[in-house]
Amino acid sequence: MKKEIEELKITIIDYDEASFQEKEAKTIEECFVFKDKPTVTWIKINGLHQAEVLEKLGNYYGLHHLTLEDILNINQRPKIEDFGDFIFIVLKILYPSNHNGKIITEQMSLILGANFVISFQKENKKEDIFRIIGERIRNNKGLIRKMGTDYLVYSLLDAIVDNYFVVLEKLGEKIGSLEEGLVNNPTQEILRAIHHLKREMIFLRKSVWPLREVLNCLERRESPLVKESTEIYLRDVHEHTIQVIETIETYRDMISGMLDIYLSSVSNKLNAVMKVLTIIATIFMPLTFMAGVYGMNFKYMPELNKPWGYPLALFMMFCVGVSMVFYFRKKKWL
Amino acid sequence: MKKEIEELKITIIDYDEASFQEKEAKTIEECFVFKDKPTVTWIKINGLHQAEVLEKLGNYYGLHHLTLEDILNINQRPKIEDFGDFIFIVLKILYPSNHNGKIITEQMSLILGANFVISFQKENKKEDIFRIIGERIRNNKGLIRKMGTDYLVYSLLDAIVDNYFVVLEKLGEKIGSLEEGLVNNPTQEILRAIHHLKREMIFLRKSVWPLREVLNCLERRESPLVKESTEIYLRDVHEHTIQVIETIETYRDMISGMLDIYLSSVSNKLNAVMKVLTIIATIFMPLTFMAGVYGMNFKYMPELNKPWGYPLALFMMFCVGVSMVFYFRKKKWL
Amino acid sequence: MKKEIEELKITIIDYDEASFQEKEAKTIEECFVFKDKPTVTWIKINGLHQAEVLEKLGNYYGLHHLTLEDILNINQRPKIEDFGDFIFIVLKILYPSNHNGKIITEQMSLILGANFVISFQKENKKEDIFRIIGERIRNNKGLIRKMGTDYLVYSLLDAIVDNYFVVLEKLGEKIGSLEEGLVNNPTQEILRAIHHLKREMIFLRKSVWPLREVLNCLERRESPLVKESTEIYLRDVHEHTIQVIETIETYRDMISGMLDIYLSSVSNKLNAVMKVLTIIATIFMPLTFMAGVYGMNFKYMPELNKPWGYPLALFMMFCVGVSMVFYFRKKKWL
Amino acid sequence: MKKEIEELKITIIDYDEASFQEKEAKTIEECFVFKDKPTVTWIKINGLHQAEVLEKLGNYYGLHHLTLEDILNINQRPKIEDFGDFIFIVLKILYPSNHNGKIITEQMSLILGANFVISFQKENKKEDIFRIIGERIRNNKGLIRKMGTDYLVYSLLDAIVDNYFVVLEKLGEKIGSLEEGLVNNPTQEILRAIHHLKREMIFLRKSVWPLREVLNCLERRESPLVKESTEIYLRDVHEHTIQVIETIETYRDMISGMLDIYLSSVSNKLNAVMKVLTIIATIFMPLTFMAGVYGMNFKYMPELNKPWGYPLALFMMFCVGVSMVFYFRKKKWL
Amino acid sequence: MKKEIEELKITIIDYDEASFQEKEAKTIEECFVFKDKPTVTWIKINGLHQAEVLEKLGNYYGLHHLTLEDILNINQRPKIEDFGDFIFIVLKILYPSNHNGKIITEQMSLILGANFVISFQKENKKEDIFRIIGERIRNNKGLIRKMGTDYLVYSLLDAIVDNYFVVLEKLGEKIGSLEEGLVNNPTQEILRAIHHLKREMIFLRKSVWPLREVLNCLERRESPLVKESTEIYLRDVHEHTIQVIETIETYRDMISGMLDIYLSSVSNKLNAVMKVLTIIATIFMPLTFMAGVYGMNFKYMPELNKPWGYPLALFMMFCVGVSMVFYFRKKKWL
Repeated sequence: MKKEIEELKITIIDYDEASFQEKEAKTIEECFVFKDKPTVTWIKINGLHQAEVLEKLGNYYGLHHLTLEDILNINQRPKIEDFGDFIFIVLKILYPSNHNGKIITEQMSLILGANFVISFQKENKKEDIFRIIGERIRNNKGLIRKMGTDYLVYSLLDAIVDNYFVVLEKLGEKIGSLEEGLVNNPTQEILRAIHHLKREMIFLRKSVWPLREVLNCLERRESPLVKESTEIYLRDVHEHTIQVIETIETYRDMISGMLDIYLSSVSNKLNAVMKVLTIIATIFMPLTFMAGVYGMNFKYMPELNKPWGYPLALFMMFCVGVSMVFYFRKKKWL
Repeated sequence: MKKEIEELKITIIDYDEASFQEKEAKTIEECFVFKDKPTVTWIKINGLHQAEVLEKLGNYYGLHHLTLEDILNINQRPKIEDFGDFIFIVLKILYPSNHNGKIITEQMSLILGANFVISFQKENKKEDIFRIIGERIRNNKGLIRKMGTDYLVYSLLDAIVDNYFVVLEKLGEKIGSLEEGLVNNPTQEILRAIHHLKREMIFLRKSVWPLREVLNCLERRESPLVKESTEIYLRDVHEHTIQVIETIETYRDMISGMLDIYLSSVSNKLNAVMKVLTIIATIFMPLTFMAGVYGMNFKYMPELNKPWGYPLALFMMFCVGVSMVFYFRKKKWL
Repeated sequence: MKKEIEELKITIIDYDEASFQEKEAKTIEECFVFKDKPTVTWIKINGLHQAEVLEKLGNYYGLHHLTLEDILNINQRPKIEDFGDFIFIVLKILYPSNHNGKIITEQMSLILGANFVISFQKENKKEDIFRIIGERIRNNKGLIRKMGTDYLVYSLLDAIVDNYFVVLEKLGEKIGSLEEGLVNNPTQEILRAIHHLKREMIFLRKSVWPLREVLNCLERRESPLVKESTEIYLRDVHEHTIQVIETIETYRDMISGMLDIYLSSVSNKLNAVMKVLTIIATIFMPLTFMAGVYGMNFKYMPELNKPWGYPLALFMMFCVGVSMVFYFRKKKWL
Repeated sequence: MKKEIEELKITIIDYDEASFQEKEAKTIEECFVFKDKPTVTWIKINGLHQAEVLEKLGNYYGLHHLTLEDILNINQRPKIEDFGDFIFIVLKILYPSNHNGKIITEQMSLILGANFVISFQKENKKEDIFRIIGERIRNNKGLIRKMGTDYLVYSLLDAIVDNYFVVLEKLGEKIGSLEEGLVNNPTQEILRAIHHLKREMIFLRKSVWPLREVLNCLERRESPLVKESTEIYLRDVHEHTIQVIETIETYRDMISGMLDIYLSSVSNKLNAVMKVLTIIATIFMPLTFMAGVYGMNFKYMPELNKPWGYPLALFMMFCVGVSMVFYFRKKKWL
Repeated sequence: MKKEIEELKITIIDYDEASFQEKEAKTIEECFVFKDKPTVTWIKINGLHQAEVLEKLGNYYGLHHLTLEDILNINQRPKIEDFGDFIFIVLKILYPSNHNGKIITEQMSLILGANFVISFQKENKKEDIFRIIGERIRNNKGLIRKMGTDYLVYSLLDAIVDNYFVVLEKLGEKIGSLEEGLVNNPTQEILRAIHHLKREMIFLRKSVWPLREVLNCLERRESPLVKESTEIYLRDVHEHTIQVIETIETYRDMISGMLDIYLSSVSNKLNAVMKVLTIIATIFMPLTFMAGVYGMNFKYMPELNKPWGYPLALFMMFCVGVSMVFYFRKKKWL
């Protein structure tokens, strides 16, 4: 429950079907003038380091102090809370990792009011997945300027869930490449990579699963803040979320299958090693014994004095060796 | 969420109990004249490459643009949506694979209206599982000409689910043949084949499971589009779907049982190898030692000078070897 | 969904508290006279080869053609369907196997009407589990003659479920005998027998599980065909069904426990084999080395010329061997 | 479904707040006089061998003949049935085993009527867990004399559930002692003991689990036989039952953990054995080879004739051996 | 169900928005004067040894004697019971362990009345997690003085759940450090530590899981004792509880993953050992055999008398050894 802090940046996008205004606010007070305008106002707050800024905002918009705490605590589970005047939503944005293989997660909090949407993010240097929404508003593309705040929230949710698919695709590729390695050379490193993936899946699932509940709530909510016209869009995001969850489950199944293959590959390698050992031992032990017999120093060993003794001994050894090889061939060990 | 494109082909089948008409439409506009006729019209659209064609259709029939997107996106989960005027259904058609062992899947979207059914498929070169329905309509066989659009949708669903049984039968055969191989010779290839099957099962389940929900909805729906007389038929398809799901579960259980057998076969083989090694080593090590003793170069080794030394040594070695063999017999290793 | 065909045999048992009549019908038409009699009529049809016979029956009694199809298709899941005038039930009769170890299953369909019960079975040469019910009716034993068609159906259900216990008992014996074998000698054959049992369990469960739902429906049904006085009997069968299911689950648990024991027995045997090898190698390798040393041909090896050289060498070897044995005793390997 | 028979013993305890009467009845008819008395009558029937006795009782008290069958059949699942005039309850009493390690189970049936409780047990020579209840009634301790039949039933249930804790404690001790053995010496016997425990757990769970349902029913029942004042006591037993179930689940988890430890202990022992073998082989094989080289009979082997030949060879062997030991030290095998 | 006893200590904190009073009571009777005051009274009873003290309290406040028993029995499951006049809550406080690695648990019972809260704890020498609540009341910080008894109960619950996070963090560190050890050196000790952790998790889950139900009840309760203004706070604790449970589940998944890694590490080590053995045996067995051949005492072995015999033999041995090494290099064993 540690609270992390970065630089603050406030962007205000205010629009209705006819008008559009965008500006960067220096102080949080600049937002307040928009509160009573009938237009849709999207206040985008990146960076959560100044608790007092949040407090001012909270006082002005009538947010509960527990809500403010939830916004600051970036280890929340995704959830939704209906306060009558506004709906409070907590979400996880996921970014595929580049170098060290860990999925990066960022918490986003949303306040959906009658004529305003406030979004809170801990500033992240990575790409902004909401840029396209801003552009659609600016250029009046699609329905967004004709609809209310609930449609804006839908657009944000949609962007987040679509981003999940990107993350999943990257993971799918990783699984694919691991699988090939598994077939060719099952090392301890691959095992660790599989377990790393498994853990990522647990983590992913924990981030996405509660989102289903959030969308369920939004869809069926009697809150006047969600209009009926938006319901079909929310249902669409809901479907996508279920698809994400199912993909995660499928990946989990695939990963546990990989573990099985790994373990049986290790067993098979042990078998292969043991076969080599057994073949060598089984061929040379009898031969060495025969050599040992004729190396004994008994006075009366008649074979030793025969000129054909040595070639015969070699021939017998050869026969024993060859018959052993045949035996292994028959047993399909060679 | 990639959208794939193929050649477009529009077939219109229009019928009621008395009349029947079938034609291939060049343009989508040809369909529009049927909209206000009281007869049942089945518009069969194969190929989804022209989004604008879909858009025209959507505008004319009042389809929501999210529905159009769902039709174009061929990675949907099976689902059902009731829009009042029409019901939108997404399904998966499965084809058994021939050469590379992968089940081929194709998405089918259905619009069930009061007097029209529109079906969308990405054109697939494989056999048309709906041919028999067309023939029944043409020749006025069975009830289909006497019933409405809901019965037509039932017929399509029935054809799809019946096709699942074909796919399952092929898989059942594959499981059977793998099992035999497993008993005779558990190779790494069989392991991989088992895992391939396991994955196909996950995939199958994902395609079929939500269908249950779809049929559940249709059956219990208060929508006036589904008449009571059709309910019993839908229940029948529902039963079949449950049977498909149960068969998939049974196959999954069987496959995981095969994995167990595989692993224990590998263990047993290791045991067998180790026994051979142990037997050889246990017999020849003492013998070699005895030969080694009489190969020592001590001056005073009285046995060496006795004429019975050599035969006695050989006899002792023989005794040791034979008693070892008896020991293994008693232990049931031989 | 293949339809199998055997010889047709129609038995009619007609009774009320006062009267009783039993006859074998040659043609299906002979049954029709009983339709309007107020007495209870049990029409027992064994053999399903003549679809046209079924069709006549269906037309006369007003059965839906899907019901007729379900009767003919002997791969149905157990199910219940209420058609208002009659209730349609599909069940599985199980027979314990004698020689090849497979449980034999037979489908039974029941039509429960106001004053008639029609039962359909594919003729099976095995014993008739309903013989006792016929006798009770004939001899007016118990309540059966005083009650209606619903009690007759209860009696049939009861006979079927009681038969499940017989099947389970046989399976229980098999599990017991396998377990003993497992302890004494874990062979690959026992493994296969365990897996065979496991599969039988999956099969059994699939046959019995839906029966619970069937009984649930009958019990709670508002259908006037099931009188309140029968409810307690149905509840009794329900209890027995649950007991059957629990026993199946217990057997499954026991079987999976046997698999664990099998695998660890195999591991233990490997350990035992390896210990023997290790003991032999550890004793004889040093000894053979010592013998090898005194077998070297160096000119100046003073020990070789001493009269006590040979006995000393043997003594040293003896000491090494004995100390190794003590070492293994201490390690509890011997 | 076999019915077992023992000696019959009927005890009648009749009480209200003011009066108390206890007697052993010779015949079942002696109980009948109590039926219409307003006092609470507890008829305790031990031994179920005389079906006709039960029948008389059943006729007099208006019990259903299925109920009588359930009482006689001692392989019932715990269950509850409300017949309006009386509630029928089936329970399992468990006794910890002494010598052979099996938990002993005994079925108890209860009839809860307005002013009577009839309890049926197959006579068991073991201690009577209800003795303390009899004493409380006799000595008017606690509330029992002030309350009705429902409180008496609660007292019986409470005694039974409390006894479960005794059984669990014994099992807990067994698990503890097994665990120690597991750490010190994982033998095949411990494996079998673990599996025995596992099976006992399955059995226990089967006996206790349905009790939850029974108590649930009693608690929420609208039956006038259960007064509101008793509800809190029933809730208390309910809590205890849940605690028993949770303990069983915890034990199951612990036992499956023990299996894991067992299997990995076996693996570790194999590893230890293999290490010994490898160390011995790796040290002595090169040495034996060196001895073998100098045991060759070539004429021209200059080392053989040097006086320092033998000591040098021994020294080299010593060096090889020591360096091997160092190698294993480095690898942490020694 | 043993009852443990320690020293008794009664603290009374009485407050409303305006007034505040705190004192240590010598006898339980000192509390009784506060019963009818409108202010909030928190009676904190540490030590449960004097059943008669509890009884007095129970009589005065009208507590049910089962409640008193539950308070004394410190092996209760967390639960909630609504008695109309007061709500009874049982909870578990957890303390991270210091030396022997076991989590310490302590039971806390709460009575929530209209104007009083009574908390019962078995006196524990460890730190008081409720100290901060006392300070907040003393210094009138936050809302606590403005709110009623339900907010006080919320504060206590919040303190307990926050403490769970501390316990989890310690466990997380332990898991982390075990994991490192696992990678470097998988010993039997680490296995036992993993199993110890697993068991702690089962224990933790058992303590925390029912708390969810408790909070659920409090949140949705129609009891006038819980005011609507407190609901949001209870929801907040609820969220935290779910987070605790999810963390426990994640830890369980991680621990079972560690077990997999452990087992496969053991397998890998066995493989490594076997490779060393196989390499040594495969190199030296053929060499020893060759030496053995030239150690035979045949009269006619022409090579023995050639001056190049010895160097050639050594060279051949060298070649065999080197080619073996190359073979292993190719097989990637070296």
